[in-house]
Amino acid sequence: MEQVLEYISIAGAFAFAISGALTAMNKRFDAFGVFIIAFATAVGGGSLRDVFVNANAVFWLIHPEFMYFIIAGALFALVFRKYLGYLRKTLLLFDTLGLALYTVIGVEIGIQNQLSGISCVALGTITGAFGGVVRDILVNDVPLIFRKEIYATISILGGSIYFVLYNTQISSFYLHLIPIGVIIVLRLLVVYFKISFPAIYYESTD
Amino acid sequence: MEQVLEYISIAGAFAFAISGALTAMNKRFDAFGVFIIAFATAVGGGSLRDVFVNANAVFWLIHPEFMYFIIAGALFALVFRKYLGYLRKTLLLFDTLGLALYTVIGVEIGIQNQLSGISCVALGTITGAFGGVVRDILVNDVPLIFRKEIYATISILGGSIYFVLYNTQISSFYLHLIPIGVIIVLRLLVVYFKISFPAIYYESTD
Amino acid sequence: MEQVLEYISIAGAFAFAISGALTAMNKRFDAFGVFIIAFATAVGGGSLRDVFVNANAVFWLIHPEFMYFIIAGALFALVFRKYLGYLRKTLLLFDTLGLALYTVIGVEIGIQNQLSGISCVALGTITGAFGGVVRDILVNDVPLIFRKEIYATISILGGSIYFVLYNTQISSFYLHLIPIGVIIVLRLLVVYFKISFPAIYYESTD
Repeated sequence: MEQVLEYISIAGAFAFAISGALTAMNKRFDAFGVFIIAFATAVGGGSLRDVFVNANAVFWLIHPEFMYFIIAGALFALVFRKYLGYLRKTLLLFDTLGLALYTVIGVEIGIQNQLSGISCVALGTITGAFGGVVRDILVNDVPLIFRKEIYATISILGGSIYFVLYNTQISSFYLHLIPIGVIIVLRLLVVYFKISFPAIYYESTD
Repeated sequence: MEQVLEYISIAGAFAFAISGALTAMNKRFDAFGVFIIAFATAVGGGSLRDVFVNANAVFWLIHPEFMYFIIAGALFALVFRKYLGYLRKTLLLFDTLGLALYTVIGVEIGIQNQLSGISCVALGTITGAFGGVVRDILVNDVPLIFRKEIYATISILGGSIYFVLYNTQISSFYLHLIPIGVIIVLRLLVVYFKISFPAIYYESTD
Repeated sequence: MEQVLEYISIAGAFAFAISGALTAMNKRFDAFGVFIIAFATAVGGGSLRDVFVNANAVFWLIHPEFMYFIIAGALFALVFRKYLGYLRKTLLLFDTLGLALYTVIGVEIGIQNQLSGISCVALGTITGAFGGVVRDILVNDVPLIFRKEIYATISILGGSIYFVLYNTQISSFYLHLIPIGVIIVLRLLVVYFKISFPAIYYESTD
């Protein structure tokens, strides 16, 4: 089980590193800026999760292998940037992958810390979504999470599914596959069909 | 005492959730963005406080009832947005309420952690002001705290009053009422009379 | 040793406070905004470091003397702003000083926490660079670290030198002097000769 979570977590870090690197290249940052944004995107959500549950230290300081995978992800994006650029929605794909993998890890950590259901799901969503928030703040964009796509909602749904399944007799394979698959499929559908919540604004009369 | 602090803290979360929701609606975020900004505004300051004093976990993960009040605050702002929109300075009012309540809680947590006076007051100001800073960063504004109104100064003053009163024989009722009242009254006076510190800038000769 | 680290750390806080105050004055913030930005710049990196290694509490809450030096640094910048304004690259100088001092402290804390080499160096770079990132985010600029100068790279190099020297027989004086000197000299050379990594961007074909 520990092993499965470690693999999922590393895969999430790799995906988010690519997503961060692509964003930074798009903003014309230098090579180092690309690595930093990749790093911040990949560790942002998990670091906040570890800090919020008062873990011994953030995960990537204790398991430095994460840093090697993040560097590898950023290098991958740098080397294949021309091909990735041709693929529409490459950024979306890796960001979605990171969201799905990190959401599941976040809920799992909440369960290990004996938190309530709502707390576990919130922790999953923070773990999944906060890396992207950090990425967008660092490049001075309004975070993607607040823009058109139904982003956090899908993370909350996927995290809730994981939490419910966790308390059943389901095998470890399906326990992880189902919520990860639901998040990926839903997000891609939402973007493909351009589904969004209506904006709700109030007219200021000042 | 514990009970009083819990009530004050929940009232602060409710007020900040409304303040965050109003800001997000003003920026034309979708319903989910409104909830997220409400959440970040309501838990930002207290989370930073808990992380800074190395608490067991952030308050809202351990006490998930906070999340219900935050959702209620955001819903309240969504439902009554037309009426709140007509009230000039509604946002100011709830932001001020949150500032006052959270400042007192922050100083109290500092005292419980046996910190020095200046550390307690700093913790109170961070608890009170940081939720609004997070709110403003997330919607990509320059934080209100750095703009015209004398914001943090009032929090520092109110926090100092609480710290001094704490070491007297004053009843718990007045101990909390006086600094909260001072912060609210001063902030409203400052805004009403448009009092501000002069900007101090230096001419760059580059 | 403890004493040396405390002095270095306080000097770093003082330098970053001046750097933050100059930035805030340049943005025409009021006196209080100047103090807040000075404070956030001076404690940002070290706070993140303490939170990441799960220290008992952030350093400036336990050692409130830091706050007095930060206030002194901000006052220094306010009082001498005309003279500092005439000195080209004053901000650069103090920012570089803070970067060098905090990088060394961060690596040292990593060593004390028995972290791996890469984790120690990452912690040093975060400690050194994150205060400036917080400063730039708060005044709503794209962080300096992502802009033209080779900033974090130099911190990583200096941190690595410290880590390597730590395991030799070198005296405490040179152990600290060499990496601090290397960071300062390299950064000033890089800025003087306008050395920068080329921007690497990918053409989006969407």
